[in-house]
Amino acid sequence: MESEILAQVVRGETVESIHRGHVAVVDGDGKIVLSKGNPETITFFRSSSKAFQAFPVLTSGAAERFGFSDAEIALACGSHSGEAVHTETAAKMLAKINLNETDLRCGAHPPFNEEIAEALIRADEKPTQFHNNCSGKHAAMLALGKHLNADLTSYENLENPVQQAILDTVSLFTDVRKTEIKIGIDGCAAPNFALPIVAMARSFARLVFPPKIFDAETREACRRIVSAMINYPQMIGGTDRLDTVLMQSARGKIISKIGAEGVFCAGVLPCERWKKGLGIAVKIEDGDDKRARAVVIIELLRAFGVIDETNDEKLRAFSPMPIKNRRGDTVGEVAATLNLECGI
Amino acid sequence: MESEILAQVVRGETVESIHRGHVAVVDGDGKIVLSKGNPETITFFRSSSKAFQAFPVLTSGAAERFGFSDAEIALACGSHSGEAVHTETAAKMLAKINLNETDLRCGAHPPFNEEIAEALIRADEKPTQFHNNCSGKHAAMLALGKHLNADLTSYENLENPVQQAILDTVSLFTDVRKTEIKIGIDGCAAPNFALPIVAMARSFARLVFPPKIFDAETREACRRIVSAMINYPQMIGGTDRLDTVLMQSARGKIISKIGAEGVFCAGVLPCERWKKGLGIAVKIEDGDDKRARAVVIIELLRAFGVIDETNDEKLRAFSPMPIKNRRGDTVGEVAATLNLECGI
Repeated sequence: MESEILAQVVRGETVESIHRGHVAVVDGDGKIVLSKGNPETITFFRSSSKAFQAFPVLTSGAAERFGFSDAEIALACGSHSGEAVHTETAAKMLAKINLNETDLRCGAHPPFNEEIAEALIRADEKPTQFHNNCSGKHAAMLALGKHLNADLTSYENLENPVQQAILDTVSLFTDVRKTEIKIGIDGCAAPNFALPIVAMARSFARLVFPPKIFDAETREACRRIVSAMINYPQMIGGTDRLDTVLMQSARGKIISKIGAEGVFCAGVLPCERWKKGLGIAVKIEDGDDKRARAVVIIELLRAFGVIDETNDEKLRAFSPMPIKNRRGDTVGEVAATLNLECGI
Repeated sequence: MESEILAQVVRGETVESIHRGHVAVVDGDGKIVLSKGNPETITFFRSSSKAFQAFPVLTSGAAERFGFSDAEIALACGSHSGEAVHTETAAKMLAKINLNETDLRCGAHPPFNEEIAEALIRADEKPTQFHNNCSGKHAAMLALGKHLNADLTSYENLENPVQQAILDTVSLFTDVRKTEIKIGIDGCAAPNFALPIVAMARSFARLVFPPKIFDAETREACRRIVSAMINYPQMIGGTDRLDTVLMQSARGKIISKIGAEGVFCAGVLPCERWKKGLGIAVKIEDGDDKRARAVVIIELLRAFGVIDETNDEKLRAFSPMPIKNRRGDTVGEVAATLNLECGI
């Protein structure tokens, strides 16, 4: 099955560009509730996998041993903007395990938050590895490595026990055998996972509504991850970032996590309408991270009744997304083209 | 006809994202030499139209009256990086018509050249309208306006004689009636033109090989625009920018001009193989400006025998385009998937 057109860019009255993609939504029983394009499309999980990369830190006992707070757990699940609250939290996590910035192996990049990025330039300072949006994830990986007595200088290698524990977790939640998961290297140098998007949706459904086959420890870790993400949305993204705005707007109804190359996953917590919760996965075929993904997922989450942007200015800024010229006039828009009302 | 897959993003051994699009190549007789996807796809010409927006400055006599140099004509046809040579040339053009920066109506944006953009931040200076990649085009529009005694405070409005002269030119070269050209507002606030990409290809073919139906003045203006672009490739883009690198690499064989939202046009000058030249137009369906467009056009231009990247490091940096993690390791690539050899 081919991808479907999910969003279009309109300038004046003319469609200028279009974005195609795939959507998979499953309920707590793993049943497909909605699909667009091909839900079996394989692509990388990217940062949408972070909750599962953080997971064995909880089940191994490392989080308890090192006294990680919910805010720190949330940062490990997030792709943060490099704001002070993020870099300081990552530093605290490393302090708790007696390691420091140079032990991270994620590399550095300018903070996603443009004000902070400009402030660094103005101060003639280079970004550090703490500014890397994955620094919380890497701090958690180091904690797991320390707890497992693994080699800490190679914690990001697939063969390292840290990455094997993560791969086991991804396999458990996606229900895809380890041997069937192809590996690629993510932007932060950690292994990442090529999976059908329906399996990504399944993993989020299981996170918010753990199946009975999971043991008590695993179910408790699910509860804590979900609760940490919901209580600290600022740690998942940052000021005006999509995940943060979505989770704040949904007020405890969802966990939400973008991934690079146009990936997005969310879990809808069990509620009156969706008694066993939902898992949602979207892939914008061309990898768009800037515009199509935002309008598509807002349309989806609205159709599923978990957000309402009517009175939410921050959310409305994302969809439809205005196209402005350099003088600030609106000259077009990016809008979702999913026709969902009859599909759910 | 649907778009075709033109490029793919591969991480490890897995295709992570794909880019679709349309290609139209016509010869000097207007005959289609190659097409991919749907050559009748309508989208905006964007900055690939700049040679035609500069055109009436020549045919009206404005360029001669104000003594515009070939470098200045080239800047009017370019989307520059905001380097000193660009902003100074735009300033000189305005000085020649006794106007200044505040008369421009293009708005300001940070220079495309990252070093210059960072230097501005460091100096706590805001970008000016001179830094706008379209400042040469807008200076030329003002010159035309002055020459035509048009209202200079509204030179960017469609009703203004400046924009009507440009629309006439676009219609002449694309062979599309004015009334059939839908208008949208470009990023620089000037009108832009929705056209089938085959018409864009035709306009570039006519620019490099003017048909006999064109009068002597028009043919002479074609010659001068082409010659200005070829002699001043630095003015069309800037340091390490795609158009500049392509034209430098092709050594006088092509004119090349990107447009926003994944548009690209080129004209291949008449040569032994293409006796009446070629006009090339590409649209990446999703509007990609960063990666798919570059690999696709390099593949095309190589297949048509006008570039050879074997010994050209700057060109090889664009295609295949490496994907690097934050530590600088190559973890994937973006590559064209056109299978051209048998198609030409």
